[in-house]
Amino acid sequence: MKPVVNIKTPFLTVDGIINIQDDKGNFTGVVLIERKYPPIGLALPGGFVDYGETVEEAVIREMKEETGLDVIILRQFHVYSDPARDPRQHTVSVVFECVARGTPQGQDDAKKAIVVPYKEIPFEKLVFDHKKILIDYLHNKNAIFK
Amino acid sequence: MKPVVNIKTPFLTVDGIINIQDDKGNFTGVVLIERKYPPIGLALPGGFVDYGETVEEAVIREMKEETGLDVIILRQFHVYSDPARDPRQHTVSVVFECVARGTPQGQDDAKKAIVVPYKEIPFEKLVFDHKKILIDYLHNKNAIFK
Repeated sequence: MKPVVNIKTPFLTVDGIINIQDDKGNFTGVVLIERKYPPIGLALPGGFVDYGETVEEAVIREMKEETGLDVIILRQFHVYSDPARDPRQHTVSVVFECVARGTPQGQDDAKKAIVVPYKEIPFEKLVFDHKKILIDYLHNKNAIFK
Repeated sequence: MKPVVNIKTPFLTVDGIINIQDDKGNFTGVVLIERKYPPIGLALPGGFVDYGETVEEAVIREMKEETGLDVIILRQFHVYSDPARDPRQHTVSVVFECVARGTPQGQDDAKKAIVVPYKEIPFEKLVFDHKKILIDYLHNKNAIFK
């Protein structure tokens, strides 16, 4: 069977909403990164899916690369595909809800990684459509993440 | 901001699980198409997402092109991304749960479109990973579709 050629589809990415649990079993907040490259600002960690890789493999790899964390995937949360969501090109992102323990370290495309309690998310500093994603998530989220 | 170049991500597609409701308000089954091109067999209707198009726009367009139906999206169901799911190339599919009224007509890449009651789905004739998708869906599905 020959491949379908000459097709241009959007670029595929993943983003992770990482809920951090501390040593005492309390959820302390969500991981945000300070971006090293434009658009400059805060964002959920994420990146491009490689050809030949599943979206689950991609999110585990990207979370490790950008934050040093070994995340556990809880579920696929939602797919965001507005062509205007990334100013550089049309990217479609599969957003995952994840959990992890430990302290994130900003690496790779992330200058810094921080853990922010849900009630203190600086929405005005979020780039791309990550404000929308986090608002959708907070409306939808399981009550265990207080 | 310059676009990120030289990146190869998987091809993005959408598939629709269309629940058909008849004139009396009864759900009669799910739409399957008989494929015109290899791999030959039965499949959920679906197709490639255009660059610049949302996944929601893509699924409404593709369902219309392949079945003639104007579908209503109920929700994003799940993203399937196993590199082996399509024998031609790596495609990642966002699968939607939809509803529609009317009789599907096979068009475009579909030789024929049929409505199959859930208990009569011929799983052995489904191509790609559509058997897995429909089994996942039936395990997960809302009880209103009997």
